[in-house]
Amino acid sequence: MAQSLAPISATLQRSILELCFAGLPLLLLTLILQLQLQCGSSGITSPYRRRLQASEDLPVGSEFLRPPDLAGCGNAPEQVHITQGSVTADSMIVSWVTPSQPGSLAVTFGNETAKYSRTATGNITRYKYANYTSGYIHHVKLTNLEYATKYYYRLGDGECAREFWFVTPPKSGPDVAYTFGVIGDLGQTYDSLNTFQHYLNSSGQTVLYVGDLSYADHYPLGDNTRWDTWGRLVEPSTAYQPWIWTAGNHELDYRPEFSEVVPFKPYLHRYQTPHRSSKSTSQLWYSINRASAHIIVLSSYSAYGKYTPQWAWLQNDLQNINRKKTPWVIVLMHSPWYNSNMYHYMEGETMRVQFEAWLVQYRVDIVFAGHVHAYERSHRVSNIEYNVVNGQCSPSRNESAPVYITVGDGGNIEGLAGNFTQPQPNYSAYREASFGHAMLEIKNRTHAFYYWHRNQDGEAVKSDSAWLTNRYFES
Amino acid sequence: MAQSLAPISATLQRSILELCFAGLPLLLLTLILQLQLQCGSSGITSPYRRRLQASEDLPVGSEFLRPPDLAGCGNAPEQVHITQGSVTADSMIVSWVTPSQPGSLAVTFGNETAKYSRTATGNITRYKYANYTSGYIHHVKLTNLEYATKYYYRLGDGECAREFWFVTPPKSGPDVAYTFGVIGDLGQTYDSLNTFQHYLNSSGQTVLYVGDLSYADHYPLGDNTRWDTWGRLVEPSTAYQPWIWTAGNHELDYRPEFSEVVPFKPYLHRYQTPHRSSKSTSQLWYSINRASAHIIVLSSYSAYGKYTPQWAWLQNDLQNINRKKTPWVIVLMHSPWYNSNMYHYMEGETMRVQFEAWLVQYRVDIVFAGHVHAYERSHRVSNIEYNVVNGQCSPSRNESAPVYITVGDGGNIEGLAGNFTQPQPNYSAYREASFGHAMLEIKNRTHAFYYWHRNQDGEAVKSDSAWLTNRYFES
Repeated sequence: MAQSLAPISATLQRSILELCFAGLPLLLLTLILQLQLQCGSSGITSPYRRRLQASEDLPVGSEFLRPPDLAGCGNAPEQVHITQGSVTADSMIVSWVTPSQPGSLAVTFGNETAKYSRTATGNITRYKYANYTSGYIHHVKLTNLEYATKYYYRLGDGECAREFWFVTPPKSGPDVAYTFGVIGDLGQTYDSLNTFQHYLNSSGQTVLYVGDLSYADHYPLGDNTRWDTWGRLVEPSTAYQPWIWTAGNHELDYRPEFSEVVPFKPYLHRYQTPHRSSKSTSQLWYSINRASAHIIVLSSYSAYGKYTPQWAWLQNDLQNINRKKTPWVIVLMHSPWYNSNMYHYMEGETMRVQFEAWLVQYRVDIVFAGHVHAYERSHRVSNIEYNVVNGQCSPSRNESAPVYITVGDGGNIEGLAGNFTQPQPNYSAYREASFGHAMLEIKNRTHAFYYWHRNQDGEAVKSDSAWLTNRYFES
Repeated sequence: MAQSLAPISATLQRSILELCFAGLPLLLLTLILQLQLQCGSSGITSPYRRRLQASEDLPVGSEFLRPPDLAGCGNAPEQVHITQGSVTADSMIVSWVTPSQPGSLAVTFGNETAKYSRTATGNITRYKYANYTSGYIHHVKLTNLEYATKYYYRLGDGECAREFWFVTPPKSGPDVAYTFGVIGDLGQTYDSLNTFQHYLNSSGQTVLYVGDLSYADHYPLGDNTRWDTWGRLVEPSTAYQPWIWTAGNHELDYRPEFSEVVPFKPYLHRYQTPHRSSKSTSQLWYSINRASAHIIVLSSYSAYGKYTPQWAWLQNDLQNINRKKTPWVIVLMHSPWYNSNMYHYMEGETMRVQFEAWLVQYRVDIVFAGHVHAYERSHRVSNIEYNVVNGQCSPSRNESAPVYITVGDGGNIEGLAGNFTQPQPNYSAYREASFGHAMLEIKNRTHAFYYWHRNQDGEAVKSDSAWLTNRYFES
């Protein structure tokens, strides 16, 4: 099965999966899926119409945005978030903010049998932005972690101490099952909260975050206290499982009108990434191996022309993927290359022109993007034949190409993008203007089950799904 | 007359010009040119075949690369270069290097009647690159200069002092005649020397330099002493007239293999630009007004995606051009958008996709680029109708579009790019694989005479030329 599929009912998909894992030969699965493929793969524009009004940001005093209230403590660690600490998953970067004092630089941690037996220390950074001065932003790397192990960790001093835990993934291998959540453009509205809470109730083990975090830049002077409130909003997940960060346009915070001219300043201070471990020279592009996936993060708002650092890095990274260890290659970026919404239409073209041929050449499985506040999934297509004079510039089906998925529908203050181009282009498999999040369940080296959850009246409703077969082992 | 022209003989062009300036109505000129346009505008691939072997770099000890030899002086200012110091041409940045001591920070200067009556001071910078440590790099801005005035200036102390001069242009106005030279990819070979000396003998008043200066990165560890030798090679021009700098890929000097990971480090230390004056936040993109021209410099190797600093700056700059003051809008970049050489083919596509529609919308007159080591001139074309699904991706004639000229043929160590795509595409008016330089003689608000000089057996031979009419006043 070599093509993304028209949606089938979630029940049928689950039944197929259960049959498959009950030991029935994969042949049966393949036959059913091919039959379905032949029956129809034209695009679907969901008839579901959600209200298009943006919901408001949660008030600063909301229970979801408040700092922790620890008796006797005036400097509790807050906005705790963790992310993978190196290319391999045997380290973790733990980050947090203390508001009024530096506090302890240390993280104590350990596994179930020796909970706080080890100590790691890191560094503190601060920054100013317009009239805002940040708290003390801590980054500590925990190294030499064992795989598939639950770790407990503690931050802060005395009565300010707080405790959390995380589970490391199995060591990378071709058949390691793993479940990723995919969230983008979350913001901090009531809709954001819906999306976030739905994800909290999911089976996701790690979040692939495709950019646009806090939308602090929506406020006068890019009010960076809204970076703090966002860090608190998501802590119930980010403190317990890694979020793999991608920078979006709302991370640029480039505002010459009030002399803020260093792109990505707040983001780079707050969200570390393990870029050096993958030979990147910028926090904004890097890669990691996690379970059976090689995850590449790109920056839509940095240079990517030929010879530039991001260009040189991506070429090298793609050349060195070991598909026998990490069969699934997933690329994250903010601005989508294939998206048929009127909003932000074609904004990703310039990066597509530069990088698309490589992604096809190296048989990338999936590209997740955000930016457009609606959901869309493409067929496997490419548009790489163009040579300026041949007129060949139409996307066409390509079995070597990734599926492109836009999940910029976290639920931020800008509202939904409800206008799709008409008719639905051939490359588009499914599109719907609603808030939600996606999940990717990697089963083994050949199969992964992908689905997207709509937020409907506060409920998570599985609205689009597809079995994806691996481009290296099963294309 | 609204289209770039098939070449006519230089003699005929001169005759037309003289008639025109003798007072005959412009109508006559227009009729002749239109007649010529109808007669034929297909592209020409020059049959002239130059040897394709790259010539060698001049040896470090060459008389053209040696520091000045002043009796009794061990620290003479060298590599003197000047560039326009603000959007308006009433200031000049003077830069030089002292090898062993900081030396005087001052420039004394004045006009013919008060030669050294004023003093300006600036700052010194140094940098390390691999195993190299730069000399003391001075940058001093001379301000409040009068227009159309010859200024004398002096640098250095006592027996190390050196004297130079420059002429400020007339104040900007629609009919101010002015002659620009255009040079790219110069390097420091024997061919480079040819090109440079031909330019020295020209009537050029200012150089538009389209990137790739020293090719120091060709040497082990990016030997930065070759930045110094290049600065000495071009001093006979750069000390006496402004060169308007554009960064090319050979300015990136991004070499993670020896821990040099700050893009453009040597270039940014050595070549200042008046970027702040045009509201840019980077030395790599900016604009100036000079005589009747508004000159925009772009960076092919920085970010240009939507929302990025360069994108935001260019949009604002184009919106604020006063064509009644500076009718001629000229854009400089390194990587060309329209070029039919096999070498570097389509490398400029990604920036073209981002910016081309703006250049057509704002009726830019000419885009000069380098990068490809051959000469090419386009017809006025655009390719901005593409919407992913409509198949409209062929360049077509467009009277609002610029002429695209590639002059990456300064003569560097990489040699010529002799293989053109076949057949010559419709957008290409003239192409030839030879070293040389170009000249743009702006006559008034409606007409400019453009020509390209081939280096042939050491002689400068005018090989391609065209009358260009202004996109705002005469399109």
